[in-house]
Amino acid sequence: MKATILNIGDELLIGQVVNTNASSMSQMLIAAGIDVCGTFVIGDRADDIDFYLRHCIERSDVVLITGGLGPTKDDITKKTLCDFFHSELYENQEALTNVKRIFDARGYELTPINRQQAWVPRCCTMVNNILGTAPCMWFDYQGKVVVSMPGVPFEMVNLMQTEIIPRLQAHFRTDQIVNKNILVQGIGESFLSDLIEPWELSLPSTIRLAYLPQSGMLKLRLTARGSHDDRALLQQQIDRAVAELYPIAGQYIVGEDLETLPELVAYTMKRHHATLATAESCTGGALASQLTAMAGASEYYRGGVVAYSNEVKECALGVSHQTLLDHGAVSEETVRQMAEGARSRLGSDYAVATTGIAGPGGGTPQKPVGTVWIAVASRQQTVARLLHFGDRRAQTIERTCNAVWSDLIKLVNQNNPVKPL
Amino acid sequence: MKATILNIGDELLIGQVVNTNASSMSQMLIAAGIDVCGTFVIGDRADDIDFYLRHCIERSDVVLITGGLGPTKDDITKKTLCDFFHSELYENQEALTNVKRIFDARGYELTPINRQQAWVPRCCTMVNNILGTAPCMWFDYQGKVVVSMPGVPFEMVNLMQTEIIPRLQAHFRTDQIVNKNILVQGIGESFLSDLIEPWELSLPSTIRLAYLPQSGMLKLRLTARGSHDDRALLQQQIDRAVAELYPIAGQYIVGEDLETLPELVAYTMKRHHATLATAESCTGGALASQLTAMAGASEYYRGGVVAYSNEVKECALGVSHQTLLDHGAVSEETVRQMAEGARSRLGSDYAVATTGIAGPGGGTPQKPVGTVWIAVASRQQTVARLLHFGDRRAQTIERTCNAVWSDLIKLVNQNNPVKPL
Repeated sequence: MKATILNIGDELLIGQVVNTNASSMSQMLIAAGIDVCGTFVIGDRADDIDFYLRHCIERSDVVLITGGLGPTKDDITKKTLCDFFHSELYENQEALTNVKRIFDARGYELTPINRQQAWVPRCCTMVNNILGTAPCMWFDYQGKVVVSMPGVPFEMVNLMQTEIIPRLQAHFRTDQIVNKNILVQGIGESFLSDLIEPWELSLPSTIRLAYLPQSGMLKLRLTARGSHDDRALLQQQIDRAVAELYPIAGQYIVGEDLETLPELVAYTMKRHHATLATAESCTGGALASQLTAMAGASEYYRGGVVAYSNEVKECALGVSHQTLLDHGAVSEETVRQMAEGARSRLGSDYAVATTGIAGPGGGTPQKPVGTVWIAVASRQQTVARLLHFGDRRAQTIERTCNAVWSDLIKLVNQNNPVKPL
Repeated sequence: MKATILNIGDELLIGQVVNTNASSMSQMLIAAGIDVCGTFVIGDRADDIDFYLRHCIERSDVVLITGGLGPTKDDITKKTLCDFFHSELYENQEALTNVKRIFDARGYELTPINRQQAWVPRCCTMVNNILGTAPCMWFDYQGKVVVSMPGVPFEMVNLMQTEIIPRLQAHFRTDQIVNKNILVQGIGESFLSDLIEPWELSLPSTIRLAYLPQSGMLKLRLTARGSHDDRALLQQQIDRAVAELYPIAGQYIVGEDLETLPELVAYTMKRHHATLATAESCTGGALASQLTAMAGASEYYRGGVVAYSNEVKECALGVSHQTLLDHGAVSEETVRQMAEGARSRLGSDYAVATTGIAGPGGGTPQKPVGTVWIAVASRQQTVARLLHFGDRRAQTIERTCNAVWSDLIKLVNQNNPVKPL
């Protein structure tokens, strides 16, 4: 089972918009057991669409197309598909109802141009796009499947998750794949490997185990693969394997099925009913915005201070003037006082702090660009750490955030130990 | 002059990494007068590389390849190119010197595997990659050009800017394109169009003018295009056009050649020697991190408070308890006090504030999800505004930031008027 992805749109071709659709579509396909053999970006030109559609059909079983479905003249995907499949457009009543509903909800009048959104080729199966006016179209063609979806990312993602992936799995009776991620901290990869070796050897042959190191932790990925009708069995096998892992390595497990460190922070804080504050100099609000980008942050996140100038470090966080004079803003003493000041002033159980030279300017021989101090404060203790990065500002900010989250998760879990059985 | 882009790498194909290379390469090519007719992502497979390289050479004058140049076994681009061009690998001394320099600087020993990075096909022109160990390779082939670059974005961008684009322009004697962006605020598109019509009609035929509306402002883009040897002339024409625009519309011009709103904020604050503080609830640090992502933010940005909980709004920003009780956290009264509190407590000339319901939870019939208040405070006045967005959290945060930046730039420019000549 192979798929190709064809993203249509001048805005993608000229680089005005980064093509995030290709990567999210690939991820969903691969998680569903469908390999991706190529992704192509072309402009809104009928001859290119025709050529690459033919090319993709030749090279794969499934062709997923996005874009070019708007009501304006430059969007020609639907017309071109109609010609390709020697079909004709008609007004689909279900699609029209959907278009009307969306226009009603926005309080707009439905113009004839917009009504054309409900027209689809007779030969396709119309798949309703409840989040937008452009219907999704499914074509069965010479034993292969061609699907055309809108290019708006959230509409495409919703269609893929709720309609297209399940339909593809049913249509091709694809292998079932069940994934499980276990996040582990506080033990090296080789020690963990020794510890869980008997467990690993006892896993059924359908389950594969992968060690994926992340910043400051390790992700164990269990993948069960089996035939189309075995989903329930595979899920049972995964559940049993996870249940059997806890008595062996439970004290090192910090989370399950979380993809990013901020997600793991949110999970950890909520799990232990702990609250958090941030005090940021060199990360400049990146820590705060990573947390608040996720819904529900107010359950554990109280707030933070972006202490970019020394005056703000003093007045908003209570860093001592003398400390700044004696040790400088980028020092262990300052970062500790920042974390402790944030914790006490913002009234949280934990606080994290960063101060450093993100660059490209501001470095000295003693403290070159990329020198960063981080700290995590709890009621009982404050842990600080010195980091060295290069002169790339964005990378230094990103890596500093990862180190902070890793240290925070470690400290919170140390303070809330899980007893091994 | 047409180019195709071929991005090679399993990590791109499976969606683990978003392909930002394609968009940044397209932007650079188009700015240099070279059209892009397609971008292709394929995996690290020799038959696919061979097939699509042949395909791209057939369809375009220039093929730009990224990826697959690392020292590990799965990186096969160099070997495959060597076979394609019927050439053989040899150790290039300039490339070896570069590899040694990079290993020395990192304090690593040069292993035989890493030394192979300096091997390139005899038939190519080696283009030194000073930021990494994988050399860039330029192939002249049947009147066309094929360039292979590393996939690491910052290495590719540097090679494109400093080496490949200039060499392509010289090789194909491409049209010269000179762009200039003028950012305008405080006048509607149609009024501006009337005002500058005589100026527009007087522009030389080499210059095209485009109106590009942005959040809360308008971008005028001047594009001069001429033959390869006319760069100096085109630049003169653009400079004269801009100089002649100022006496007509100078009071509305807020910046030149800036792409993003945060860049314009940085420019505006520095230009008027003004300082800024932020007070964020619903944007949760996004304002702060947009500013601090840019080098030099400490010149004008003093810091900020992420006041996620009401207690932090009170203790760190001085919002009155009674105001929060009477009007709630999402109210004009609260957002004004947040902005004024940030300005006075953090000691800045200006402060901006946000409070709202980013969702998806937390809405009420009176204040549905997407309700946002923003404010900008100066020494003289505080301006507040109510916004309504939908229920998509990331979009609400992004649009709130744009509205804040637009209002801030407006207020700072009002307070520092430029006299029309």
